[in-house]
Amino acid sequence: MAVIHAYAAKSAGAALEPFEYDPGPLADNQVEVAVTHCGICHSDLSMLENEWGMTAYPLVPGHEASGVIAAMGSQVKGLKIGQRVGVGWQSGSCMACPQCMGGDHNLCPSSAATIVGHHGGFADRVRCDWQFAVPLPDALKPEDVGPLFCGGVTVFNPMLQYGLLPTHRIGVIGIGGLGHMALQFANKWGCEVTAFTSSESKRDEAIKLGAHNVVNSRDSNAMSQLAGSLDYILSTVNVPLDWQTILGALAPKGKLLVVGAVLEPIPVPAMSLIMAERAIGGSPIGSPATIAKMLDFCARHKISPQIETFPMSKVNEALEHLKAGNARYRIVLENDFAA
Amino acid sequence: MAVIHAYAAKSAGAALEPFEYDPGPLADNQVEVAVTHCGICHSDLSMLENEWGMTAYPLVPGHEASGVIAAMGSQVKGLKIGQRVGVGWQSGSCMACPQCMGGDHNLCPSSAATIVGHHGGFADRVRCDWQFAVPLPDALKPEDVGPLFCGGVTVFNPMLQYGLLPTHRIGVIGIGGLGHMALQFANKWGCEVTAFTSSESKRDEAIKLGAHNVVNSRDSNAMSQLAGSLDYILSTVNVPLDWQTILGALAPKGKLLVVGAVLEPIPVPAMSLIMAERAIGGSPIGSPATIAKMLDFCARHKISPQIETFPMSKVNEALEHLKAGNARYRIVLENDFAA
Repeated sequence: MAVIHAYAAKSAGAALEPFEYDPGPLADNQVEVAVTHCGICHSDLSMLENEWGMTAYPLVPGHEASGVIAAMGSQVKGLKIGQRVGVGWQSGSCMACPQCMGGDHNLCPSSAATIVGHHGGFADRVRCDWQFAVPLPDALKPEDVGPLFCGGVTVFNPMLQYGLLPTHRIGVIGIGGLGHMALQFANKWGCEVTAFTSSESKRDEAIKLGAHNVVNSRDSNAMSQLAGSLDYILSTVNVPLDWQTILGALAPKGKLLVVGAVLEPIPVPAMSLIMAERAIGGSPIGSPATIAKMLDFCARHKISPQIETFPMSKVNEALEHLKAGNARYRIVLENDFAA
Repeated sequence: MAVIHAYAAKSAGAALEPFEYDPGPLADNQVEVAVTHCGICHSDLSMLENEWGMTAYPLVPGHEASGVIAAMGSQVKGLKIGQRVGVGWQSGSCMACPQCMGGDHNLCPSSAATIVGHHGGFADRVRCDWQFAVPLPDALKPEDVGPLFCGGVTVFNPMLQYGLLPTHRIGVIGIGGLGHMALQFANKWGCEVTAFTSSESKRDEAIKLGAHNVVNSRDSNAMSQLAGSLDYILSTVNVPLDWQTILGALAPKGKLLVVGAVLEPIPVPAMSLIMAERAIGGSPIGSPATIAKMLDFCARHKISPQIETFPMSKVNEALEHLKAGNARYRIVLENDFAA
């Protein structure tokens, strides 16, 4: 195999620089994907800074890749050379534990991640176990698709897992990289959609993305008017919130689903759960089968992330743009290695 | 109507004393139940002490009554004089809100409680809206049935609402008035049942009640061996626990259901919910339809609470027995007014 051309950080916080590596022989169960585009996710920043203490350097970030199958191992099933696929956060799993056998590969305790001990998609090629290269519906454009593979499925999965119904009223907290996709999903799911944002400037955009109502989460009067009204609240932010008020906004049998990795424990009053039969849950990414369902849903409903593109050679500029909080709403790198 | 003979407390913390009251004319939608037995629940103690600030004195406690229909209003449906019924915590609801119309009467915001602004079942007769007088299957003994109407349905309802399956491994925390019924339900539900208790003396009894395993919740070694193994944990205690360890005992997709009204907020780490798709929920009593399902389940599986009986005239002794933590596991008063 030829070397892979990529961009890597040599140490925590360092700028990315051109980097080549020899991936070695392709395993029997792997595919190699020729990357045309790769989204940038907040967790790429976290990994670059080694915030979770699990980064190996040099690190090639990138776990929202789209491209075409360039090579396949001997055990690969159902894929062919040249086929369009995407690769997300997860690049492999044990395929044998109760979670994998039950279709919940995203909950496999031995899950492999595309950028943990493995080089990612800021590169001309990336590898994964074949089950994690999910075919793309024809209707989806290659530049749009990457952000669905991590940010998108992170908000789509809890809708599926926690039984969101078209008759539900759903609130989405945080209109950013995740939330702007959640609004689109929830609207096409058939729900009444309320967007929560502390940024008035995002009001019109939230409506365009599918919100029927927009509530300023810092307006305590507006928040208290929502008491007991929402069947489902999806929190995409990673800062502590006024959890008491948010739980209070849930209707009887309502659910608060947390996908934003807030570090401070959420203080949950038992009586608030007991009296109105409320629940709080969480959810990580999604299985390959869930990603496939999401892609199909996006194709049918013309859902796509709102993106800004940068050539891959400008990856450091793109990372700065994301870090500054200016991305509207996802950044996608275009492979210009060949150029 | 004749006066009702009862036992009432005149003020917070006072002993109960004989008390008569004129209930006035029976409403069109009410039934009057001639009480043969009434269970004592911890929430009777809380109401007697006015712990929740909603007690009106004189208070006639008692919300686990069984008896027979003695009188019916003109709008009552499906019941007849002399029919055996039970009355639990809830004695009425609005019958018009989305919760009532949806069958979730226990979540009605205008719910009426048997001992809140209303006299309860430590009496020769008690009244409720007819929908809340639930008929008793023939197989159930009148002295056994009362504790099912509050304590029993409090642990049965979350099993139904949160989708407990016979293939699940369930843990029950606290082997007391609630937990000893939960063990029986869970065993007959088909589950693998683990009892958590800090009292070694309850080990053998937990096994007899249906536990397959008994774990001392103060044994941190035993607790850590359970990591990631339980699909469902039901917490019946009202004291703060080592929530981190308990959440850690949940398998992927596991649920912690809280029915014990612990006052201190439960600190929930978002990542513990997110990474393994776990949830925490609560649940209050159950609807009349759920109570009916529970009674049917008890009749089919020969489930009954383990009770100690006292004549109603010894109500103060019985309350002291409960307060001292000596009840094994529910106390039932037998009406001896006629004697």
